[in-house]
Amino acid sequence: MMLRPQPSQRAFVPFVSVENMMRLVHAIGVERFIADLAGHIEADFRRWPEFDKTPRVASHSRDGVIELMPTADAESYGFKYVNGHPGNMRAGYQTVTAFGVLSSVSTGYPLLLTEMTLLTALRTAATSALVGRYLAPEGAQVMALIGNGAQCEFQALAFRALCGINRLRLYDIDPRATEKALRNLRAQGFEVTACASTQTAVEGAQILTTCTADKQFATILTDNMVGAGVHLNAIGGDCPGKTELHPDILKRADIFVEYPPQTRIEGEIQQLDPDHPVIELWQVMRGEVPGRRDARQITLFDSVGFAIEDFSALRFVHERIRGTDFFAPLDMLADPDDPRDLFGMLDRAR
Amino acid sequence: MMLRPQPSQRAFVPFVSVENMMRLVHAIGVERFIADLAGHIEADFRRWPEFDKTPRVASHSRDGVIELMPTADAESYGFKYVNGHPGNMRAGYQTVTAFGVLSSVSTGYPLLLTEMTLLTALRTAATSALVGRYLAPEGAQVMALIGNGAQCEFQALAFRALCGINRLRLYDIDPRATEKALRNLRAQGFEVTACASTQTAVEGAQILTTCTADKQFATILTDNMVGAGVHLNAIGGDCPGKTELHPDILKRADIFVEYPPQTRIEGEIQQLDPDHPVIELWQVMRGEVPGRRDARQITLFDSVGFAIEDFSALRFVHERIRGTDFFAPLDMLADPDDPRDLFGMLDRAR
Repeated sequence: MMLRPQPSQRAFVPFVSVENMMRLVHAIGVERFIADLAGHIEADFRRWPEFDKTPRVASHSRDGVIELMPTADAESYGFKYVNGHPGNMRAGYQTVTAFGVLSSVSTGYPLLLTEMTLLTALRTAATSALVGRYLAPEGAQVMALIGNGAQCEFQALAFRALCGINRLRLYDIDPRATEKALRNLRAQGFEVTACASTQTAVEGAQILTTCTADKQFATILTDNMVGAGVHLNAIGGDCPGKTELHPDILKRADIFVEYPPQTRIEGEIQQLDPDHPVIELWQVMRGEVPGRRDARQITLFDSVGFAIEDFSALRFVHERIRGTDFFAPLDMLADPDDPRDLFGMLDRAR
Repeated sequence: MMLRPQPSQRAFVPFVSVENMMRLVHAIGVERFIADLAGHIEADFRRWPEFDKTPRVASHSRDGVIELMPTADAESYGFKYVNGHPGNMRAGYQTVTAFGVLSSVSTGYPLLLTEMTLLTALRTAATSALVGRYLAPEGAQVMALIGNGAQCEFQALAFRALCGINRLRLYDIDPRATEKALRNLRAQGFEVTACASTQTAVEGAQILTTCTADKQFATILTDNMVGAGVHLNAIGGDCPGKTELHPDILKRADIFVEYPPQTRIEGEIQQLDPDHPVIELWQVMRGEVPGRRDARQITLFDSVGFAIEDFSALRFVHERIRGTDFFAPLDMLADPDDPRDLFGMLDRAR
């Protein structure tokens, strides 16, 4: 009898399941995780020109979109698979689910496969709060959270971890969503007010975060709701035909974006002329152009989520699982003894 | 004590490891697997206009390339991750490794994650032989196999399964590669001749298959080696800057391609004018344009590998694992009880 050949170590890819991602997050602590991840994102934004960048590759259908978001530097390649299906919730599915892979550029071999539904929620919030550190008005204490779905609590935790925000004003068209967020956020020690309208929610807030999920042009904020000096953190408009802000707001604001070629298609600025001026955040983070200049300026982070943030998150997780048991080896790569003898490997397994 | 909430079924994605792919292939039989898969590919080529098509998204580096190949019809979305690193072999790694995902278009949820290193070898061979059925000269009995690396044996098995080819003439610049293929193919019952040069290998062959791996412009076949009536099955030229045939051959041949926008960049025809006429295989398979017209015509399949072939392969595997134990459930998707309460799920796992 022949022994079945065993795959070597290089045939295995470390896999972080949802269960293990939750264990990793709690081992580090949610806010610490977000803050450390933000540090990785900031470091990567500061070396922006080193990345191979491309707008994400989207496949649109009636019900939603499936996207692939690749990027690479000289050493590592990462991509994320992510869907957005606003109708999913009604059937008990997540609107957004995601997973991702980090690979070695020099061999093309995957180094990590990980769930990214949770990780995307964490990196989106980490990016928002990181940008908030550059753009929110000095002494900001109150944030309005319009849209109390899956992203809401992560935004709150990130803005506390990075910007010291502890007072929140919530609104959602569905009061059950607000109740859920209220419960979760009070348990985390926030001072939270549930509001009856967007108009009420924005009162006294220096930071306005919109994270709604409808796949359509919507006007979550109108011009009169946005006073001088506020910072707008617009998360939900992230898809062609999906926006949250009235165009008049955009015209009064200084607009900060991740990657213009993608934001022009997907962000709030799809409502503006294609040459409307925008400021690239990587240049702000490198100190090449100013962020907030004065106390009356309206700043807008037109967030759509860019591949480099996922890349930072993949590298962060890859780094942090080392020496832990928060991953399992996955037999995902064929590894014949003689790499040219793929057929021999198959044949001997018979 | 609270019970840790268990993820529901929808959090799990069926995963086919390399080990399980080998079990599936042997349960069906290699040649039967290739022939059935070719049937799926043919059916999908015949409904070509139904697919959302895009050239693959490639990230090139000094050592190789990493590519994402997505496509979708109205029901299913599929993508493949695949690398090509010609120098890998020297370090004991595979030149090409791959994995893929099949998803539901209506929810965006992944339905299958599978190894695709073996599956790509099988689908590439299945596509070649399927095309061979339309283009190879009648009564073809002998195939030359130039390049005796990982793809070689799969090509032989596919051409036997689909075109009845049983006589093979092998050549590789590395005699050890030829020895390996000779051993494997004789054990499979082929009549095999190892040749000392490409010139010798093509003698008397009606089908010339080139599947070499160098990432550069090469001239594996020169014009004088290609007589009237042969069918050229050019597999290895599949990347910008990587070709196998002398351009004079291309000018004498009728050129058949998968997806022109991708083949113009990656295939042998990158050596020709961008408007040099090519024939699309899906139209041949639909009977809209002729394949081989006469016994003296030189036909060329300028194969680069297109996403729809991987889509067919993903659907085929998804179909064939049903009711078997050739997969394992992978906890890859976050699945909170209330889809808006992603944070609550994380928090309760603490």
